[in-house]
Amino acid sequence: MSLGERSYIVHVESGSIDTLADSAAFDGKFTRAFLVSDVQVGAIYLDHVTKQLQSLIPNVHSTLVPVGEPSKSVAQISELWTWMVQNSADRNSVVIALGGGVVGDLAGFLAATFARGVRFIQIPTSLLAQVDSSVGGKVGINLPQAKNIVGAFWQPQSVLIDPTVLSTLDDANYFAGLAEVIKYGVIMDADFFERLETQVPALLERDVEILTEVIARSCELKAEVVIEDEREAGRRAILNYGHTFGHAIESTFGYGEYLHGQAIAIGMHSAAKLAVELGMVDQAFTDRQQSLFKKLNLPTELPPETSTEKVDQLVQAMHRDKKTRDGVLYLVLPTRIGEVKLVESPANELLARAFAR
Amino acid sequence: MSLGERSYIVHVESGSIDTLADSAAFDGKFTRAFLVSDVQVGAIYLDHVTKQLQSLIPNVHSTLVPVGEPSKSVAQISELWTWMVQNSADRNSVVIALGGGVVGDLAGFLAATFARGVRFIQIPTSLLAQVDSSVGGKVGINLPQAKNIVGAFWQPQSVLIDPTVLSTLDDANYFAGLAEVIKYGVIMDADFFERLETQVPALLERDVEILTEVIARSCELKAEVVIEDEREAGRRAILNYGHTFGHAIESTFGYGEYLHGQAIAIGMHSAAKLAVELGMVDQAFTDRQQSLFKKLNLPTELPPETSTEKVDQLVQAMHRDKKTRDGVLYLVLPTRIGEVKLVESPANELLARAFAR
Repeated sequence: MSLGERSYIVHVESGSIDTLADSAAFDGKFTRAFLVSDVQVGAIYLDHVTKQLQSLIPNVHSTLVPVGEPSKSVAQISELWTWMVQNSADRNSVVIALGGGVVGDLAGFLAATFARGVRFIQIPTSLLAQVDSSVGGKVGINLPQAKNIVGAFWQPQSVLIDPTVLSTLDDANYFAGLAEVIKYGVIMDADFFERLETQVPALLERDVEILTEVIARSCELKAEVVIEDEREAGRRAILNYGHTFGHAIESTFGYGEYLHGQAIAIGMHSAAKLAVELGMVDQAFTDRQQSLFKKLNLPTELPPETSTEKVDQLVQAMHRDKKTRDGVLYLVLPTRIGEVKLVESPANELLARAFAR
Repeated sequence: MSLGERSYIVHVESGSIDTLADSAAFDGKFTRAFLVSDVQVGAIYLDHVTKQLQSLIPNVHSTLVPVGEPSKSVAQISELWTWMVQNSADRNSVVIALGGGVVGDLAGFLAATFARGVRFIQIPTSLLAQVDSSVGGKVGINLPQAKNIVGAFWQPQSVLIDPTVLSTLDDANYFAGLAEVIKYGVIMDADFFERLETQVPALLERDVEILTEVIARSCELKAEVVIEDEREAGRRAILNYGHTFGHAIESTFGYGEYLHGQAIAIGMHSAAKLAVELGMVDQAFTDRQQSLFKKLNLPTELPPETSTEKVDQLVQAMHRDKKTRDGVLYLVLPTRIGEVKLVESPANELLARAFAR
């Protein structure tokens, strides 16, 4: 990730969770490590990782937060700030995130704000975190009124990704992570999309070799966009393909009803249907994208019983998205596999139809 | 302040608080303003400033926090985050700090963290804020265990300084602000120090013309250091002259016993006495610095009844200062008027003697 003095290496290697001591990420730079994980990931990997870190860093402190989005709260970050100060953290300390997106966002915000910023290392353990949230520097917490509304851009110093840890991930979260992988293909790399189509059996089996390639390519594509536009002033917006629809689904149905990747899959399918109506792509595009989602056990449609009132709520929620500019909603819509563009949203009636079956 | 794409203008002009509408700082760039002040400053200037902003920005929201350091808390920042989200803040919003150092640090941290960072304008109303805290980008809040331990480097987009507002500042805070002004002379500009000596009568009268010059020069000197070392990796440390002693006084005597500038004046005098003992300066240096402090109604010594136990506590507090590196304390000590250097701290006995009369 080439970002001048904030450049860093995203290291994707199978088995690397067992060889942290060999990683250049830790070589003698830190006096104290503050390792943040969640109770579920921690139960599997905390001791294993802590032991390795102890051979590299004089003092290793660790803490486990509850699983899930509610941990990205003011109360939780406040506890973590206190934990660091009580354990003599200073500017030579490093914060390490061991977990999925929630842990990465929370620990990253901790690193961004403790002592005006300390170094940060990501060890992402969910597919979503490995291909998306651990790379790019977006960190933060939620308020009851809005997700990710408090945060910072704070780049990690290293991202250490081991695809073998995905073997312990549950099916729903694994497939949800693939939604973001497919997204990279649709928005910027037709060849990658095509490879994913041929690799469906390997992806269903969680073939480590194929996953290593797929994760590395996803990170490369994301890095390409982030390098051009670190603070999301322009091109980075393409990463939001399907996300304005998806965020509306998450907030309207309530967080927890759909995993993020599931909501995004439905969102991408909705965006594609809208693009067909607007004459930007043909029906074959939508069918091809939908077919890949289905093969990878991802939903593409809302439940058949979804009421008209609910659809109206979804459309209203889209207009509250952070991505509005001066009150105007912009959407990322496809023009072909491998290319999207940012267009001003059409009338609400068309948005509603995009959510319908 | 030349910091690449984070460059900004520090505008020092008498009467500028009445002509905000003429300032380039606000020209059509923001859809919403979030003005933070405290109840004391707000009582004098809030309506006046709000009215002017309303002619420039479509929506102006304002809030007042309690006076003093306790407002730099997790509870307060949490309220402010909620206030912004409830008032539809987005990335085109601007946070404006109208007040002293506490308001600037708090509002600056709000700007640094809302929606991963929004634009920020400082209108400092205390002398300390005008010559020091509003310039340089350090923002943050306190934890019960440590001051300024949670924060960020977040540069304002403009700093608008009007020396006429100092007429409403109480004497103690006015003189305390001058301690930081004197500091700039001692650490980096002998001519400036000499001018301050000749301008004592004008400073005692709060002569607006002289104050405008003095504030502008202070900001120039601070900017020079910050430009070289924005994130305090090296040279910026010289700004901490007197501060390791001063922070120890503040934390040991309890915040509120001494104003920051008063503690820093005693701290600079203690640093000078230590430098004499170490043969770095002669007694004439210390006498000259002390004489200027005294003429400007600043304390230079702890109360005569300060016990040996208290002095021990002060020395221990110095070792807990954020500026230790790998457990070693470094101090900024003078070599002549206009020059300081960073030296490893001598034995505690010498530190204790520097606090004694």
